[in-house]
Amino acid sequence: MTRVAVLGTGVTCTALSVPLADNGHDVRLVGTHLDREIIDRIKTSSVHPGLDEELPVSVKAYQLEEASQAFAGAEIVLSGVNSFGVRWAGELLAGLLPDRALVIAIAKGLEAGADGELRILTDLLTESWSASQRASHSVSAIAGPMIAGEVAARRDTCVVFAGRDQAALDRLASAFRTDAYRVWTSTDLVGCEVCAALKNCYALGVGLAHGVLEAPDASGRPDRMHNYEAALFAQGAAEMRHMAALLGGDPETAGWLPGVGDMYVTSIGGRNVQVGRLLGAGARFEDASARLGHPTLEGAAAIREIGEALPKLARRGMVNPEDFPLLRHLYEVIALDLPLDIPWRSFFGGEPGHDRATAHAPGTRD
Amino acid sequence: MTRVAVLGTGVTCTALSVPLADNGHDVRLVGTHLDREIIDRIKTSSVHPGLDEELPVSVKAYQLEEASQAFAGAEIVLSGVNSFGVRWAGELLAGLLPDRALVIAIAKGLEAGADGELRILTDLLTESWSASQRASHSVSAIAGPMIAGEVAARRDTCVVFAGRDQAALDRLASAFRTDAYRVWTSTDLVGCEVCAALKNCYALGVGLAHGVLEAPDASGRPDRMHNYEAALFAQGAAEMRHMAALLGGDPETAGWLPGVGDMYVTSIGGRNVQVGRLLGAGARFEDASARLGHPTLEGAAAIREIGEALPKLARRGMVNPEDFPLLRHLYEVIALDLPLDIPWRSFFGGEPGHDRATAHAPGTRD
Repeated sequence: MTRVAVLGTGVTCTALSVPLADNGHDVRLVGTHLDREIIDRIKTSSVHPGLDEELPVSVKAYQLEEASQAFAGAEIVLSGVNSFGVRWAGELLAGLLPDRALVIAIAKGLEAGADGELRILTDLLTESWSASQRASHSVSAIAGPMIAGEVAARRDTCVVFAGRDQAALDRLASAFRTDAYRVWTSTDLVGCEVCAALKNCYALGVGLAHGVLEAPDASGRPDRMHNYEAALFAQGAAEMRHMAALLGGDPETAGWLPGVGDMYVTSIGGRNVQVGRLLGAGARFEDASARLGHPTLEGAAAIREIGEALPKLARRGMVNPEDFPLLRHLYEVIALDLPLDIPWRSFFGGEPGHDRATAHAPGTRD
Repeated sequence: MTRVAVLGTGVTCTALSVPLADNGHDVRLVGTHLDREIIDRIKTSSVHPGLDEELPVSVKAYQLEEASQAFAGAEIVLSGVNSFGVRWAGELLAGLLPDRALVIAIAKGLEAGADGELRILTDLLTESWSASQRASHSVSAIAGPMIAGEVAARRDTCVVFAGRDQAALDRLASAFRTDAYRVWTSTDLVGCEVCAALKNCYALGVGLAHGVLEAPDASGRPDRMHNYEAALFAQGAAEMRHMAALLGGDPETAGWLPGVGDMYVTSIGGRNVQVGRLLGAGARFEDASARLGHPTLEGAAAIREIGEALPKLARRGMVNPEDFPLLRHLYEVIALDLPLDIPWRSFFGGEPGHDRATAHAPGTRD
């Protein structure tokens, strides 16, 4: 039996308590200051209001002021806060981490520095840690297609634990792995983190297809735009590959669970797709977000972060100004309120017969 | 104006007459012996019964006995028959091909020889041609996400013309390319043809997820199996990549429009997915096919062809016996009537902690 402390009670990290408890581990969920009511519900009824599954009775819930009690003796720490809380979580964990605990995180995003340099979130998490904490707690991350409710319902799920320390990955994987929650490992932490962040951006892009036919000036024919959304999906896959390589990761990571697998599941539904649909129908981003109740949109946040970084990276010669045409246009639509006008001709290295050089397979540019 | 002769009146090749006619070309659709009524309908009303769009009036239809009239002076020949008619089409075209006509084909599949060697369909098409015909008519193929009705409705569509002769590809692409039908080119004919065939197989696999919850012994909970289908999609993408490399193509072709782009659109709907759904719910393949009215199933045909070839290729040392676990299981379900039991542990090079070696990123095995 391993003691596992979980910081955060979002649906994803809470759902992960199910395979952990099924494996007989001692799971302790610690709510943030935003999670008081969720913790109270779990304490009294083992029910998380956002998950349609009762949690195993062995899972214990703790309010934030009980965190040191929950973390005492934990051998595994799961950082379950989303991309907006990573720094906060890192500072809190700096004071809570038991010696030699393994750390794994689920936030999805990239952060841009002043010169456009893009950082993965596991590196932000450890920013406030001491050198010895950083040396003794390798931080891994979870990637791959993982809808929380399905994990909690013990539906077949295949994921990837990514990190720089293979031994840590193996120990983490065997703590979480069940006959329903299946875990592969990858030492391409950068590639996996890039894919995890970008899949939200491109799922928002795929969602545009659902909305274009609802625009006031659309022809009104009932046809869906499957060819349109498939082309966006393919361009997203190519840009993921390129970004993984740009940040020093393995471009092939885009080709399996962490990349196209996760992008597939994210493109089928969810908040980022819903925002895309409203944008496709002509809404401005702020209006679309308001109509959905201003949900947490890691995809939109990553589009802003990367969209602002790309011109800086181009000025430094690290990318070409015409690279990442889909991501740049998503930035124009979301951050600059420009009208939707998919730059098809710039996709896949440039459609032959137009301005851009006639590169064929996008992989050749990596 | 270019004269284009089209053999076959399936929805896909008929839809392609729209961008061709929009570009001012002289398009001549020639029906096979199965297409008499379709040709009569188009002759009298410009309507194809399977396409919800009127064809441009400049598109002319011909019965099979009028084929030599239709083909006279054609500079481009589009072979529109499906995988089951490729040899027949090749023999017919041998007698009809005008000098120097460019040929492009749309059939999706692979054919296995006696020793398991897998051949792409463009090579079957030319089997009965003379050496000089083969030398003077480079055969190209169309790959990528392309639902016929959307092409006919002039919805944005991005495709790839693949072939061995770049000059031929450029001429073909500029004959078909419009502001809605966008064409890239690739000289990786083998990779594109492999992806075009395999995407049907794996879309059938993705369809399984839709059916599993409808099985009599399923828990009946209304959850969809998105994680399940996304894992099948990702394994399909990895196997596509492997098969492209095995046959001498470029594995990176699996990463954009011809691979994951086309697999995405095929996984959203269509006959192969419907068969998968019935299999997922427990039907035997023959029953599933009968319930759908025995449709043309290029995916099921390719699964049989490749599934029979793989053990032969393994005996010859060209693949490992445990390679292509998803395709081999689809073969077991479709051809051997074995019960569905997804071999998750064999996916992505083998889940660590089980029988198979702990390979991590599938790309490392290419």
